[in-house]
Parts: sequence; C-alpha cells; structure tokens
Amino acid sequence: MDYKHRVDNLIKLMKKLDVDAAILGDRANVRYFTGMRFNAASFSILFISKDGDVVLLTAVLDYNRVKRDCWIKDVRKFPEDDPNYLKPLKELLYGKNIKRIGVEFSSVTMEKEILIKEVTNAELVNIQDDLLKFRMIKDKEEIEIIKTAAKIVEKAMIKAIDSIREGIKEYEVSAIAQDVIMREGAEGLSFEPFVMSGENAWLPQRFSSDKELRKGELVLFDLGCVYNGYCSDITRTFSLGSLSSEQKNIFRVAYEAQQRAITAIRPGILARDIDKVARDYIAHNGYGKYFPHLTGHGLGLSIHEMPILDSNSDIVLEAGMVITIEPGIYVEGVGAARVEDMVLVTDSGYELLTNAPRELI
Amino acid sequence: MDYKHRVDNLIKLMKKLDVDAAILGDRANVRYFTGMRFNAASFSILFISKDGDVVLLTAVLDYNRVKRDCWIKDVRKFPEDDPNYLKPLKELLYGKNIKRIGVEFSSVTMEKEILIKEVTNAELVNIQDDLLKFRMIKDKEEIEIIKTAAKIVEKAMIKAIDSIREGIKEYEVSAIAQDVIMREGAEGLSFEPFVMSGENAWLPQRFSSDKELRKGELVLFDLGCVYNGYCSDITRTFSLGSLSSEQKNIFRVAYEAQQRAITAIRPGILARDIDKVARDYIAHNGYGKYFPHLTGHGLGLSIHEMPILDSNSDIVLEAGMVITIEPGIYVEGVGAARVEDMVLVTDSGYELLTNAPRELI
Repeated sequence: MDYKHRVDNLIKLMKKLDVDAAILGDRANVRYFTGMRFNAASFSILFISKDGDVVLLTAVLDYNRVKRDCWIKDVRKFPEDDPNYLKPLKELLYGKNIKRIGVEFSSVTMEKEILIKEVTNAELVNIQDDLLKFRMIKDKEEIEIIKTAAKIVEKAMIKAIDSIREGIKEYEVSAIAQDVIMREGAEGLSFEPFVMSGENAWLPQRFSSDKELRKGELVLFDLGCVYNGYCSDITRTFSLGSLSSEQKNIFRVAYEAQQRAITAIRPGILARDIDKVARDYIAHNGYGKYFPHLTGHGLGLSIHEMPILDSNSDIVLEAGMVITIEPGIYVEGVGAARVEDMVLVTDSGYELLTNAPRELI
Repeated sequence: MDYKHRVDNLIKLMKKLDVDAAILGDRANVRYFTGMRFNAASFSILFISKDGDVVLLTAVLDYNRVKRDCWIKDVRKFPEDDPNYLKPLKELLYGKNIKRIGVEFSSVTMEKEILIKEVTNAELVNIQDDLLKFRMIKDKEEIEIIKTAAKIVEKAMIKAIDSIREGIKEYEVSAIAQDVIMREGAEGLSFEPFVMSGENAWLPQRFSSDKELRKGELVLFDLGCVYNGYCSDITRTFSLGSLSSEQKNIFRVAYEAQQRAITAIRPGILARDIDKVARDYIAHNGYGKYFPHLTGHGLGLSIHEMPILDSNSDIVLEAGMVITIEPGIYVEGVGAARVEDMVLVTDSGYELLTNAPRELI
C-alpha cells in the first residue's frame, strides 16, 4: 500500500480545510495511514502537520515493533497506563502556529478532548467524514484483501450451514463458523456474529443464544471476519424441515428484493435509489413496515463505513466501492428473512464478492 | 441480580454529588444496571433521574426484545441509523429542573457530546470513576459467573497448550483455544488474544501472527473470554524443546514474582503494595527495567477495571474484588515470560480462580 501517498492526500485536504494539523486515533484511520495492526485493547495516535510532519505515538509495549515495522520513522511512546498519554503531543505542537486541528469527533471521548485541550488551544475540527470519503474508494490491493476476507466468511458460512441439525444450539452453529474463520488466519471477527432462530429471528435478538434449532423455523445467520485489517459480512437464512407458505413468502420477497437491488448497482447511481429498489419491492409485496433497517453499507477497514445505502443517502456509487446489500423482513409470530452479500462496484456495473448458496435449505 | 438495588445506590450517589440525572452509554455500565446483553455493534442509553425515573433508550431492532426481557418498564426506541438518536432524551428532560447531568467521559465522544448539548443546557459531570467503584466489589452471583468464565478460559488454555507442536502457527494455537471458548457457550472473547513466540514475545507483538513455533523459544499466550457478561483473563508461558539457562531464569523470576504477589493478597493491603512485591522481586533479580507494565488489574463486566495494581495505585483491596496478577519480563534477543492468574480477594486472604498448570513444558 502507498501509505505516503495517502498522507499526501490528507495534507492536501488539510490545506483546503485550513486545518494546520491532524490528531487521529480511530483505529481504522490509523491503520489506513500507517499500515500497522494494533491489538484491539491497544491504541495509538497519529499526528500529521500540514508542513509534512508525520509522528506515530504508541504505547510503550508496541514501540519496538512499530519501530521495526512501520514506514513512519518518527515514533514516540507513552506509558501503557498513563492517564496523560497525550503529553508527547505538547512538544510536537510547541512553537508552531497551529490554530485548527482536525480530529475524529466520533472517536475522541470527552476524556481525550480534555487531554487534547491541555496540550493545545487550537480549535478542534471534525474531519472524520472526510477521512471516510478517502477510504470509500478501494484500490486494487485493498480489493484483493477484501476478496480474501469474503472467501473466508463464505467458507465459514457453508461449513456452519452444513453442520445444522435439529437440536443444535444457536451458539454452536456460530462456533463452527468462527472456528473456520480463525483457522483460515483471519485476524478475528468483524462484528459479534449472530444466529437467530424462530422467535429470536423476528423479534430480533441480535446475538447467538443457547436456544436449540427446531423444525419449521426460519433461521438467520449474520457473520463477518477481519482479514489483513479488512472486513467481510454475509447473512444467510435457512431452515430445518418444512415451512408455512407465509414463511416461504417472506424469504422469497426478501431474497428477490436483494437480487433486484444488486442488479441495479452501477457507477453513477444514487445510494438511495438502490435502497428504493429493495424497499419498493418489499412494500409492493405488503411487507413495507416489516423492513426496519437500511438496505446496505460500505465496508473496508471498518464494518460500517461510507456509503450507507438508505432512503436518505445522496452518495453517488463509484467503481471501487465495496458495499453490502441486505434488505430484511421480520414478521411477529411468523419469521424473519434476510440475504446479505458483499458487492464491488465496477466500471461496468458490479461484481458479487460472496457466493455461498442463497436458497433456503 | 438486584438491578433495582443498584439503581437505588446510584440515585443515592447522584444526590450526594448534586447530580440531577445520569445519561449512561458505556455498555458495561448499561449491563450492570439493566442486565441486558446487546450486540457489540449496537448500543443503548440508560437515563436515570434523581427522582427515580429509569428509562432505557434502545435501537429499533432491539426494542421488542428489551420490552420482553428487561426489568425496566419505560423503554423507548430510536431509528437504527439516526444521527440524532438522543432526541427522545429531550422529552425526558423537558420541564425538569436539571442543572447537572452525570455521564461517562471515557465513553461519550465529541459527536455524542454535541447531541447531548442539543437536548440540554445542563453541566456534564464525569461519574465514570464512581460507577467503576460500584462495580469493583462483586456480589455472590457475580463471583459465580466469573468463576465459570475462569473455568472456560482455563480449559481453553489447557487444550491449546496440549495441541502445540513444532511448526504450528501462532494463530492456529489461538484458534484452538477460541474454539473451546465458543463451544462452551461463552459470549465471546474478553480481548483480542495473542500467542507470541520467540522475537514476537520479547518485542512484544501483541497479536497472533502466522509465525511458526520453533524449539528453544519462550511462547506467551494471553487469553480471555466473556461469559454471561463477565470477563476472564489468563496468561501462560511455555516452550518446545530445551531452553537456555537465561530463558529459564526469566521464567523462574517472572513466575516467582507472581507467586509472591499472589500470596501477599489480603483485604486491607494497598494495591501498590502488591505491585511492589512483584516489582521488587524482579528488580532484585536484575530484571527491573524489563518489566514495563502493571502487575495486575480488576476485571468484571470490563476486562480492565478498578482496582489497577500499579506502583501509584492507592486503592485498598477488599473482599469481593477480582483481580489479575501478571508481572512480566521481556528481554531483547532472549525471550519473555509472564504467568497471569485471576484472584478473588476473600475475607481471609485470597482464592485463585484460574489453576491451569503454570510450569514450563
């Protein structure tokens, strides 16, 4: 990855926004610019000035590794449990004419805000959306990694569905899939996966419980992994034994809505128009009020990122975006259905990144 | 669990702090007062007024389940992706004389701070440390759950260590343990586990990589799970084949330091004095500067919580606290060693909650 190029783009943006420095702490952003993986319990701060200073602050325990592996040469450390870990920023800011600092409002806590204000009087400006826009279009290397993440999760989903039998518990199905993910060398899960069966599906209860799978239930399984920093995400709906005609209809409508939304994907179309394809089809079939969430979302270094595909999203799809399409229907007392796939927007239209069988079993 | 009693205690505290209401979002705190498990990707807001109003705001998709399962009867919902999800707070605050609101500065982001300030002009007061103090002493029910979490992670560690052989990859060892954890019905991992071998251990590199385990290396494995909301945490150091006398000595000193710190645990002792037992022993053996972190930490609904056992921690240990003891030594070019166990502080001293074999293999 050309991290230096990414930093150069950020500096250009900072000049445009009249921002003198950026202090970044969101782990996806830090990884985007540094390439460094940190344990989820650890954190780092990336400092970039519009004059081209690039400094990475890490916890003492990460320092040696970062010095060895990171392209950034100016690495500084803070004690692991120091409540005042931003002290090293003081020397970086000292004597510079810094009036406006870009930070991520969605990741800076009030605790950290106080620490930042202890080292600078500069105005804090929210640049999170600008950073998300950088990350929205994936380059070739990123797309290859995402494809691997998608293949791993697809394999895990197939293995889990192959293993279902009457009486198996929701969390046991989830465990089978997670084991495939970890043995394939993924870094971890991209979110807390959930198998939801019967009432748990239509309620819904978004975690895997010790409820046993029974015949005649619709079962949803939403799963994702992180591979080389990048997320994948897939949902399948399946069942044991025979279903009522209404359960079958819910599945058919959710699946058809998904397929129609996917085939509408092409560069130049508005995200909200993709959402509309799915939402209108579901409404036309009488389930409009049973579809309570978005049609899809971008994913990359984060599991939810731009573009969001919802009824009010005015982002125009472009080649290089990676999104999910996942309309769902949840009917009290009957069942729920959702089929979710990852889709790459291409110059000519789209490419499906997940291809595990979508039919009810 | 007596959630109502916990809320009553909070209201007493609010009166003492002259705080008129609390708006809580930290998931461990929300679970502590509500008992509700939420998917890690989801969040909720708990509102408590000093007059006794208790209201839980949840995402639309969690609403039906919370209405069914939660002891709190006033549950309100916000749209899943609504950027202004705190709007329902406005009606809760309307017409009330609310001047000071307690929040968790470590969990309220600047983004959320802006939303809170849109619904109220009240002063925001940090009550996170007070909430952590509530959670510091575990009751009998909590201790039973934590013991189960400890047993699961112990079983996973034993299985993983039994599976090691020359050439197995770090992440494969980790995957074996994670599979045990998930099949035992844990909710998930309490942190990103790491197997670190050879250079990765002393550097250290705090994640499991595709490096293969080799003879003559010290290998650290730090692992934890979440069971019924409560965290466990264990570390073992092991090796394949024979070690140098210095590697053996590093292990011996780290292990002995841990044992001495554990046997010093009793109610009434200062946390920093436990730290001192381990730190002094390691320093006395010439490895003082190779022990760069704390001796231990409390754990419960969060993996790191009060009390912290470090050289500046003036908390007095009390019966009902659950802590880890984990001094470590990391020597460049030689190896690293750390043995970590969970310990319950009892009326008469301490009880070890993790008992997997601690010897080098």
